[in-house]
Amino acid sequence: MFNKILIANRGEIALRVHRAAHEMGIKTVAVHSTADADAMHVRLADEAVCIGPPSATDSYLNIPNIIAAAEITHADAIHPGYGFLSENARFAEIVELHKLVWIGPKPEHIRIMGDKVEAKRTAAGLGLPLVPGSDGPITSIDEALKVADEIGYPVLVKAAAGGGGRGMKVVPDAASLETLIAQARSEAKSAFGDDTVYLEKYLGNPRHIEFQVFGDGNGHAVHMGERDCSLQRRHQKVLEEAPSPVISAAQRDEMGGIVANAMAKLGYRGAGTIEFLYEEGRFYFIEMNTRLQVEHPVTEMVTGLDLVREQIRVAAGEPLSVTQDQIEFRGHAIECRINAEDPRSFAPSPGKVTDYHAPGGLHVRVDSGLYTGYNVPPYYDSLVSKLIVYGSDREGCIRRLRRALEEYVIGGFKTTIPLHQALLEDPEFLSGDYTIKWLEEWLAKDTGQ
Amino acid sequence: MFNKILIANRGEIALRVHRAAHEMGIKTVAVHSTADADAMHVRLADEAVCIGPPSATDSYLNIPNIIAAAEITHADAIHPGYGFLSENARFAEIVELHKLVWIGPKPEHIRIMGDKVEAKRTAAGLGLPLVPGSDGPITSIDEALKVADEIGYPVLVKAAAGGGGRGMKVVPDAASLETLIAQARSEAKSAFGDDTVYLEKYLGNPRHIEFQVFGDGNGHAVHMGERDCSLQRRHQKVLEEAPSPVISAAQRDEMGGIVANAMAKLGYRGAGTIEFLYEEGRFYFIEMNTRLQVEHPVTEMVTGLDLVREQIRVAAGEPLSVTQDQIEFRGHAIECRINAEDPRSFAPSPGKVTDYHAPGGLHVRVDSGLYTGYNVPPYYDSLVSKLIVYGSDREGCIRRLRRALEEYVIGGFKTTIPLHQALLEDPEFLSGDYTIKWLEEWLAKDTGQ
Repeated sequence: MFNKILIANRGEIALRVHRAAHEMGIKTVAVHSTADADAMHVRLADEAVCIGPPSATDSYLNIPNIIAAAEITHADAIHPGYGFLSENARFAEIVELHKLVWIGPKPEHIRIMGDKVEAKRTAAGLGLPLVPGSDGPITSIDEALKVADEIGYPVLVKAAAGGGGRGMKVVPDAASLETLIAQARSEAKSAFGDDTVYLEKYLGNPRHIEFQVFGDGNGHAVHMGERDCSLQRRHQKVLEEAPSPVISAAQRDEMGGIVANAMAKLGYRGAGTIEFLYEEGRFYFIEMNTRLQVEHPVTEMVTGLDLVREQIRVAAGEPLSVTQDQIEFRGHAIECRINAEDPRSFAPSPGKVTDYHAPGGLHVRVDSGLYTGYNVPPYYDSLVSKLIVYGSDREGCIRRLRRALEEYVIGGFKTTIPLHQALLEDPEFLSGDYTIKWLEEWLAKDTGQ
Repeated sequence: MFNKILIANRGEIALRVHRAAHEMGIKTVAVHSTADADAMHVRLADEAVCIGPPSATDSYLNIPNIIAAAEITHADAIHPGYGFLSENARFAEIVELHKLVWIGPKPEHIRIMGDKVEAKRTAAGLGLPLVPGSDGPITSIDEALKVADEIGYPVLVKAAAGGGGRGMKVVPDAASLETLIAQARSEAKSAFGDDTVYLEKYLGNPRHIEFQVFGDGNGHAVHMGERDCSLQRRHQKVLEEAPSPVISAAQRDEMGGIVANAMAKLGYRGAGTIEFLYEEGRFYFIEMNTRLQVEHPVTEMVTGLDLVREQIRVAAGEPLSVTQDQIEFRGHAIECRINAEDPRSFAPSPGKVTDYHAPGGLHVRVDSGLYTGYNVPPYYDSLVSKLIVYGSDREGCIRRLRRALEEYVIGGFKTTIPLHQALLEDPEFLSGDYTIKWLEEWLAKDTGQ
């Protein structure tokens, strides 16, 4: 096992990795920008190295400085956390070139999954369900009618060169297909100078459901169930839960089996997340994240597993600590991402923590680097705390989460705690009946915008 | 279900009850002495009533003031926590006489278990194993030899009127029985004026193992496994764990079944703890506590149940939320009692909290009313925080506990955190091979006393 791990990240995830390492008896090296000298992960790590000025480009993305920090501290391995360099295949290769262990997937898998076209092709080859479509440009109306009939209405006409919704039409039925294809072509031609269009199944109101997977790099892989991350604002997840309120145990077993088999076939190593859109009982692959997710704690709460520990084990060449049969799902967990932001305008609200008191008690987990007197710097992501709560069922989890939020004191700046409190009172959220569009509509209604 | 519960206690347990109530949608009333006006449970409760000056006799033990507080706030029920009035049968009766619901066992059961002789007689009648002995005074050497032979050497000769070890002799074998009985009689005669002696099995070096039980008051009862509380100093528990390192699943099922059946037969209502001494594979009943224990969280961590919620449910006439079959034991949990005391001399060390930061992350639970700026009053118990950590096994739990202790910042006074840190490094503790005498011997060795 490793003697010392360098953590190439900051904030709560740096602290998360530090905790897992210390629990395994492994020393930690924090790297930090000048803005983060007083950060909790820096204070708790066994060693700390300043790697640059506040700008992330010059510090947390500064590959030579991070490698140098690992070399001067004699670290054995580098954990990248999420964001920053965590999905940079070149960085993973450089780490390995310097005889350091990369605590992450094989660089080739990071590279494949980082390319949207390549990722979908690979996913399809591994048996993951994609959004069905024309599998190339439409060349005749007869062909379009045939494809649309196969995938079912409504269908989406999309410009091959498109983006931003231009050249895109929702086609409700066969009668309107020809007209709408003509309109799409015309829009595409004028917007992009190219009238090539293709057809895809239209997902009107899907959920975002993702599966946690883990591979040992040698052809063994497991899934750890799904997370429902449909509550999003501008593609940023706000609150996540496990299990999804709409997925049955049979669906979990079936889709989980498919993703685990896919990862086993790929020879995938370490933690990964397979993201799907989900509508009317069907999953549609959208992308794979080849790293730990922000929302991994909800999976930990319902399985009892320590995902960072598994990452470290696998990187050190040890097998996964569990087989699929040993992974049991118990109860319900929800994570609230607490950001230093105005809860209505979402304007960043960094500043000094004047008061801090985290909630405690049964089944309440806080992953946060906040402490009284700490200055939240304005340079980075606004996530300052993750509050994760477990309950024996969803209702109990929500009640406990409300209690924990009412105890949580973060003084000195605005946070999104009031947003979560309002969400947890909403009947639609409580019913579990929400999709990826729901939160933005709810916010628009709420603020009268 | 209740609308409002008055919590007749203070400190972390008042907070614990508040949390469970709020998670059930029940309002809370805090009562407090003038010394506790700024306590966290007072700040978080929906209402607070001052019931007297700092002296517990005049406040937390002041029955008329507590009842008056319940009446003026229109509380439906009273939860007594632990300590103070929690095992006062008369208080339970007074609560009921005032048409308030007593969240606790039936007063007659509190009364029986509060009387040591009556408790043992009842326990024996319910089929619980007692320390075997002569079942009354020894009248002849022949009888003594017969009894000693039955229970096995070594045996203990005890003065019926005795106490403090006087008139008590450990008898190693049959050859020395007559002589030692004579010596014991002589000592007893001169110390108490009564030479009546009896025989009991000598437990040289037992563990303290207790079972959590729960009854619905209508003849249904379950057990929630055992806790090992052998780490004690002057009969005060210091660190508790579940499961016990020396109890097998088969022993848990067997003894658990016996205690659950006993409680079902008794018609016991609410939470209770059956305490045993345990030596060489056998359990010996010592007493029953008819209330929630300080160490109940370790049971919650390994079962996933909320014991205070169960107490409230049962008091409201609802059934237990689980049957015996549904109670599963998973992983390992340890609780460290963190006291405001010098970790070597155990001298109380109350004072103002100048810095406070509780540990967080996966499977770390803190039950504490501490916050920065809070003044720990000198009038009450020195317990200021309970740190409870869960792991998938004992070793993982201990590693995580070390990590959590190293993160815990309590500034302004001395605490027993360093004592726990030292304990968690001791090879004997790590091996699980310790008994009720172990900690005091370890402390004597450690301090050279």
